[in-house]
Formats: sequence, C-alpha cells, structure tokens
Amino acid sequence: MSLPTTLPDWLARRAASHPERPALITGAQRVSFAQLDVLADAAAAHLRALKLEPGAPVALLAGNGPAFAALIHAMPRCGATLTPLNTRLSPEELAWQLEDSGARVLLHDADHAELAAAATAHRPLPLIAVDQAWLAAPPPRRDAEPLIDLAATHTIIYTSGTTGRPKGARLSYANHWWSAGASALNLGLYADDCWLAPLPLFHIGGMAVILRGAIYGISIVLPPRFDPAAINAAIEAERVTIISVVATMLQRMLDERGDHPYPSHLRCVLLGGGPAPRPMLERCAALRLPVVQTYGMTETASQAATLAPADALRKLGSAGRPLLPLELQISVDGRMAAPGEVGEIRVRGPMVISDYHGRAESAALREGWLYTGDLGYLDAEGYLYVVDRRSDLIISGGENVYPAEVEATLSAHPSVADVAVVATADPQWGQTPLAVVVPHSGIVADPALATTLIAYCRERLAGYKTPRRVVFAASLPRTAAGKLQRRRIREQMAGE
Amino acid sequence: MSLPTTLPDWLARRAASHPERPALITGAQRVSFAQLDVLADAAAAHLRALKLEPGAPVALLAGNGPAFAALIHAMPRCGATLTPLNTRLSPEELAWQLEDSGARVLLHDADHAELAAAATAHRPLPLIAVDQAWLAAPPPRRDAEPLIDLAATHTIIYTSGTTGRPKGARLSYANHWWSAGASALNLGLYADDCWLAPLPLFHIGGMAVILRGAIYGISIVLPPRFDPAAINAAIEAERVTIISVVATMLQRMLDERGDHPYPSHLRCVLLGGGPAPRPMLERCAALRLPVVQTYGMTETASQAATLAPADALRKLGSAGRPLLPLELQISVDGRMAAPGEVGEIRVRGPMVISDYHGRAESAALREGWLYTGDLGYLDAEGYLYVVDRRSDLIISGGENVYPAEVEATLSAHPSVADVAVVATADPQWGQTPLAVVVPHSGIVADPALATTLIAYCRERLAGYKTPRRVVFAASLPRTAAGKLQRRRIREQMAGE
Repeated sequence: MSLPTTLPDWLARRAASHPERPALITGAQRVSFAQLDVLADAAAAHLRALKLEPGAPVALLAGNGPAFAALIHAMPRCGATLTPLNTRLSPEELAWQLEDSGARVLLHDADHAELAAAATAHRPLPLIAVDQAWLAAPPPRRDAEPLIDLAATHTIIYTSGTTGRPKGARLSYANHWWSAGASALNLGLYADDCWLAPLPLFHIGGMAVILRGAIYGISIVLPPRFDPAAINAAIEAERVTIISVVATMLQRMLDERGDHPYPSHLRCVLLGGGPAPRPMLERCAALRLPVVQTYGMTETASQAATLAPADALRKLGSAGRPLLPLELQISVDGRMAAPGEVGEIRVRGPMVISDYHGRAESAALREGWLYTGDLGYLDAEGYLYVVDRRSDLIISGGENVYPAEVEATLSAHPSVADVAVVATADPQWGQTPLAVVVPHSGIVADPALATTLIAYCRERLAGYKTPRRVVFAASLPRTAAGKLQRRRIREQMAGE
Repeated sequence: MSLPTTLPDWLARRAASHPERPALITGAQRVSFAQLDVLADAAAAHLRALKLEPGAPVALLAGNGPAFAALIHAMPRCGATLTPLNTRLSPEELAWQLEDSGARVLLHDADHAELAAAATAHRPLPLIAVDQAWLAAPPPRRDAEPLIDLAATHTIIYTSGTTGRPKGARLSYANHWWSAGASALNLGLYADDCWLAPLPLFHIGGMAVILRGAIYGISIVLPPRFDPAAINAAIEAERVTIISVVATMLQRMLDERGDHPYPSHLRCVLLGGGPAPRPMLERCAALRLPVVQTYGMTETASQAATLAPADALRKLGSAGRPLLPLELQISVDGRMAAPGEVGEIRVRGPMVISDYHGRAESAALREGWLYTGDLGYLDAEGYLYVVDRRSDLIISGGENVYPAEVEATLSAHPSVADVAVVATADPQWGQTPLAVVVPHSGIVADPALATTLIAYCRERLAGYKTPRRVVFAASLPRTAAGKLQRRRIREQMAGE
C-alpha cells in the first residue's frame, strides 16, 4: 500500500485549534500560536518573492528568538531549505559553509550583521536583515490549508565536525516529524507540557524543540541567552516541565540553585552531549531532578537513545535504549557485536538522514544505516554505552584507551572542574594519554596536584589508561553545543 | 529524500524495555509484555508452519482476550493478514466474508467453535482452535530484531457499504502506526496511562487500543465481556486513565455508578459511535468525567476528529476537529463547502486506507481522499458537525446497521414485495431497526407474518441487525427515479 507523503502544516493546525496559547516565551515577550503563524506567513511571503528555485538553501545567522522560530516554520510555506549557521564560527568557517551549501541568500539578525558581512566579504551574497519591519509585513491571505511534503528537505545543518570537514546533514520533514513522535512516545506528552530550550536553534537540539512545540501544540520557553539564574527562575515562573541541556549548562544551573530543590512539575531534564559524571547525577537525585540522559546527533534529528531517570545511577555512563522507531546496532567488521563487545554504533530508522548535502555518497551512510563513527557497546540488557568518538581513540601499546573513561575518572576528583584527555605521541607505546585539567577556583595548580591526580587515576584505572602527564589550563575548547573539541587540544599540545 | 518503510517490531521493543509491565489485564489474568511477546511468537510460529503465501488472509472468530491480542501482534512475525470476524454475524454472513476475503484458514476460540463450523459448512476451510495448548508451544529463538513493513497489510476489517454488501477495509501497518501517533498527539501520553477497552477487538475501536498498548508501552484493561459494574470497579482497581466506549455502554456505566463521582485519574472517556445526547453529557460533567467525543471509522483506523471535554457542551453535537495528520473537508459538487454549508465529509491522510480488499477501484476512494458518504458541515471555528450518517445508517448499541443489507435479506422472502428499513429510537440501544413491508398481493399481513419475517432475519443476520418490529404498508414512498425515500418513512414513523 502507498505510504503517506504529505501532512497538514503543523503550525497552521495549532494556530487554528489553539490560537491564544503561547507558542514562544522569550524573556518578557510572549508569542501566541496565532501570532507565530502570522510571522511564519510573513517570512514565507518575503522568501517566495525572491523567486528562488524549489528547495533553494537559505542561510541564517541569528540568535535564539521568535524570528528564528518563524523562519523554521516558514520553510514549508515557501519551499526553501533553511541552513542555520553557528554564530560562534569564524568568518572563514562561515564562508566555507555558505559556499558548500550553495546558499542563495544570507538572512541575519541585528546582532550578527557584522559577522554576516565578514562571512560574505570574499564571495558576495545577498544579505537580508530579519527585523521587526521585515516580519511585520502583512502576509497574503491563505486560500487552502498548507501542506507539508514529508520527503522534502527542511534543514541543512552542518555537523560540528570533531573530525575532518563539516558536512551538511540534510534533514527532511519526515526526519523531524518522526523525531518529534519518537520523543513523545518515549518521554510522554502531557496537557500542561512546557519545554525550555537554552540550546542554540542552529543546533539540532534547539531546532527540534521548536518543531516539537508546533507538532505537540505546547509552549516553548526560549531564553535569549544562557543565564543560569534566569533559567532557574523561568522554570518556576513558566511551570516548565521539560528542559533540554548539556552537562556544562546543567552544572552551572545546579551551582546557581544551591540546595533548593526543583519543583515537581519539572518532569524531565533531557541531558545531551555525552554521559554525565556520577557526582552530578547524585546531586540531581538529591534535588529530585529526573535526568534523562540522551545520545543523539544531527544526523538522527536529535535523540537516538535515552536513559530513563530510574536507571540513571544503576546504569551510570549509559545512554540507555534506542527510541522505538530506531534500530541501533554495534557493528564489528560487518557483523553484529556480542553483548559487551565494543564496536561502531550504527543506526537506521525514520529519523536518520538519507544523505549529506552535495555528496551523493558517504562512507557514513550505507544500506540505510548511518555509521556514527562512535564506539560503544550494548550490555546484556540492551543498554547502550558510548565509549568514545572513534577519531579520539588512543591506542597505547596495542591497548585501546577511551578518553571519556579517563575523563570520567578525573572528573570525580574534588579538585577537577573540567578535563580533557588526548593522545600524545610516545616513542615506546605509540601513544599515551595526556590529561588537560581545569582546576576548581581556589585550587593551586602545581606539580604536586599533577602527581596526586596521576596517582588517583592509577588507583582506579589500568596502568595503560593512566595519563602519563597532567597539564593545567584555564578553560577547554568546546563547541556551542558543549561538546569537547579534543582535536583542538591535540593540536595545541602537538604545537608545544 | 526517501521515506521510512520499516520499523522495529513494537511489541518486541516493549518486551525488551519493560518485560515485567502488564500488557493486558483481563479479569484476574495479567499478561506481561514479555509474556505477550512469547504468545505472539508462538502464534506466529504456528502460522508460519502453514506455509501460506506472504500476506495471506487468516480469519479469526474469537472473543476479547489474550489470544486475540497475541494474534494481532503475531501478524508482522508471520507475514499474514488478520481478518477478524464479527462474532455476532450469522453463519451465512460469515461465510460470505470468508469467501470474499479469500481466507486460507479460520482460527477460533472455544466459545466460537460451533459458529466457526457453521460458517464453513458449505465451503470447507481448515479450522484451528486457538487454545492454551496452541499458544503454549515454545516459539523458535529469534536471531535478529523483528521488523515491520509499514506498507504491508495488517488487517482486513469488513465494513458494510451503502449497497449493503460489506467491503474489506485493508489497514496497513502505517495506518495503524499513524493512528496511534495521532491519538497520542491529541490526547497526550502519560507515564501512568492505562487504557480500558470494552469494545470488541474485531472492531477497529478495540483493535486500535491493543496496537496502541504496544506502541505506547502501556497497560490495557481488556474485560472479557461488557459488565458495567465490573468495568466501573476496574477503573478504580487498575487506575484506568482512558476508556473507549460507545454511548450505550457509557449510559449503562453511569446508571450503575449512581451519584458516586469517578476518580480523577480517569482523564479521558473516548466516546465513539455518534454524538452524545445532552443529558448524558450534563451527567458526565456533574460526575467530573472528561468526555472526548470522536468521529471515526474503520477506514481511518479509528479516530478522525475529536471534541475536547472543554468544548463538550459549548459545541454540543459536534465531533470536534480533525486530528493533526488528517485533512478533513466538506465536499459539495467537487468544491469545498463554505462554513456552515452541508456536504459530504471527505478525509485524507496517513491513517486512511488506500483501498478495499479485492477492489482495485472504489467510488469511495478517489485521489487520495476517502469520501465517507457521511453528510456534515464545519462551523466558522472549524468544528465538524455530522448531520446524517451515510445512507441512513442505523447505529444500535455502537454497531452499524445498514438498512440496505437488512432490506436485501427481507426482499428475498417470498411474501415480501417491497421493504424499507429505518431507525427507531430506543432508550437502551439508541436506535433499533424497523422494517416497513409491502406484502405481495394475496398475502395476509398479520402479526403471524411479522413474527415469521423477524425469525427469517434472525436466521440470516446478526441479532443487532434484526428488525425489532415489522409494520405493513400498501406502498413505499419513492422518488420518480425509484429511489427509496427513507427520510419520509422515518418522519411518518416518528409521527405515530
């Protein structure tokens, strides 16, 4: 039988059924579903007026806010493809993505006008300021219910690229829809749900929340920037039920919160960006924070697996089980791994992208499977443990060392605020692990501390996993999504 | 981009993640997800052993219970198509559906062994008793995660058409999946959800609940029969949150309940089978029962539109708004009707069937739209009002009775020259069929003939289709074209 290819426009439906309900809450500003629907129509009308070919990429350089959300929802109404750009990139990096994506135009907000100009200095591109006036233009009257073509591309998002060149993941409407459905089947969907998204909308973790808001018909709290005190306050004021965070954000929220428990209406803290350290999870348990750890990526339209709060401490370090519509396997030399055996994580399902922009073939996408490049294993109960990004694997004397494991150990030491473990060349063993440690404020970073930390590891880890050297830093390079950039650290270390 | 075509087996996933959770609660019997998974595997192994061709129809004549649920979940594992039969049909009616569906085998439970034998008396078909022993056989070990082909047919369910001839609606896995998703997006999905299904599983309303149970991973309370006191007790004992009922059932539950309010955990009473009368809705409001009225049919895999409890009295008589993934329009001579204008209700979307079994074309399915044959209008706010069911449909205790089918039966009696069947109001069943008969000349129209004709129907038709009363007339009102004017007959009957 034929399978579905179109759906009614999500936002238009919610605007019809719940026009007055807040769709977005950004600081003091509240945008109803009816208002967001009008904003999306206005943006779509402007983009249609450009007479671009169907599916033409339209780049966007903007901070979180209603304009960004309106553009996300404008895409099905103008047939363009949104290419959101990371605002923390350099002009050179942006220029590369504009070129690679084939963007026809660069939209930007007021805060990013200079960066937009710099990014297009060497390869001119029409710039359009997305401001109040642009979005205030009256949209044309709608004569029929707008439809969404599930197979069309909604977004091209460049993956943060811990390895090699960034690639533009092409996310279809079907990918986004199934991701929203999968999340609801897993986390539930309550009448009073209100989702707080402090993640940048140019990342899948932020964008997915905006799409869910319309698909579910729930309110989204979208802080203009990450301010732990403001976010803790918004959780209470707006009766937030779900929040999407990465570990560094959650840590800052916990630090700001002190010993004051979170309200019970906060039913889910969706924690991405790698496994959480035990002290943080224990702190969350004490504050009655139900932490749902998740493993996902741009290519899976966000969550691929999640760990239920009840399992958070019992399955410490696990990313949980795959969401219902997704297949997740561990692949070793083309065969499926046995329980406990480490191999490459591969996923297949309706949330997984079909291809990367401009690349007919990719080694990562074969026979419907996305080979994530991440190493992991499934335990006997089917819980996923992500041991490391393949590219970060340290091989020392023939033994595999997974940096995340060494980092998790050092994180638990009371002097350590943040840590990265990378490989350094070693004449005898090929590679040995090196730890770059950010001490807590007030801690003296001296050779005695380095010796202490090495001894601390030696007590807890196999000898070959113990860092041979500990160096100190004031901070570590992370992506906007909070992901550690080990490659940059390795490059710095190699340069020394 | 390519759209998804397969999904992991729903039940297998839930059995892996929540093996101990009750999947079914039937009286005192509790079947966990792990146990239901084993039952489904056992049933699938038996059916695979029959070496039927892929997609072969397998008929089932059984009451509600774990065996029926196991067979619903066995289908993706053996590649057969389930054809559930209405246990209230006569042997002749069943024989016709067995013939039309091309069923290769008839499965039955102990309670329906005689009926199964009678239904196959004239056209032999292998009969298989689905009993404890059959389901207890050890299933073969599973070597890979089972998958579901979304485009494949899961179910053929017979619905009576306007001509009186039942048609087998072919429901795909995609239809069922999207219906479950649409229901969750509309009614929400709570961690403690528990759905009570007193509707027969051979109807879409009952079957859909069983499928949702596995897709959502929630417990289903499946009473072996409809007993208002037992159901009211189960709502409390099992902390039921959602119940699917038709008006007759709800009325009997309310009568049994008296003035005792229902517990607040019962968050949704999903009421199908036509609009509810105001006194019932007012009674429900007084008892704090949140009634969600719904309009749907076999061909939409259950709900197509629902009315939220907040609108129950404000929009009395409305079936509410279409579910998000479904388009619903009013069609008048090929154009869309204006608000308030009555026309034919048509629907399109991923829950709508693509075709009827054995009929390459159907007047009801054109350009992706299902023309329901029901008349209705949308008000200015987009709320659906169903004014008349297709071809004077009679709904008796939630069961559809098509006058044409009953008329065809009576026409075959040698005493009957002409006949019309219409609905009369009934305090218990909502409506019951009444036959207006024109006897052949020379035949004495007396009470003995009426009794004879009722008995004649009872032998050939399900009990709920059999006219409660036969009245006689000298002629029937027909249009110039000879079309029966049932509306005029109803008006005459109402006037008596």
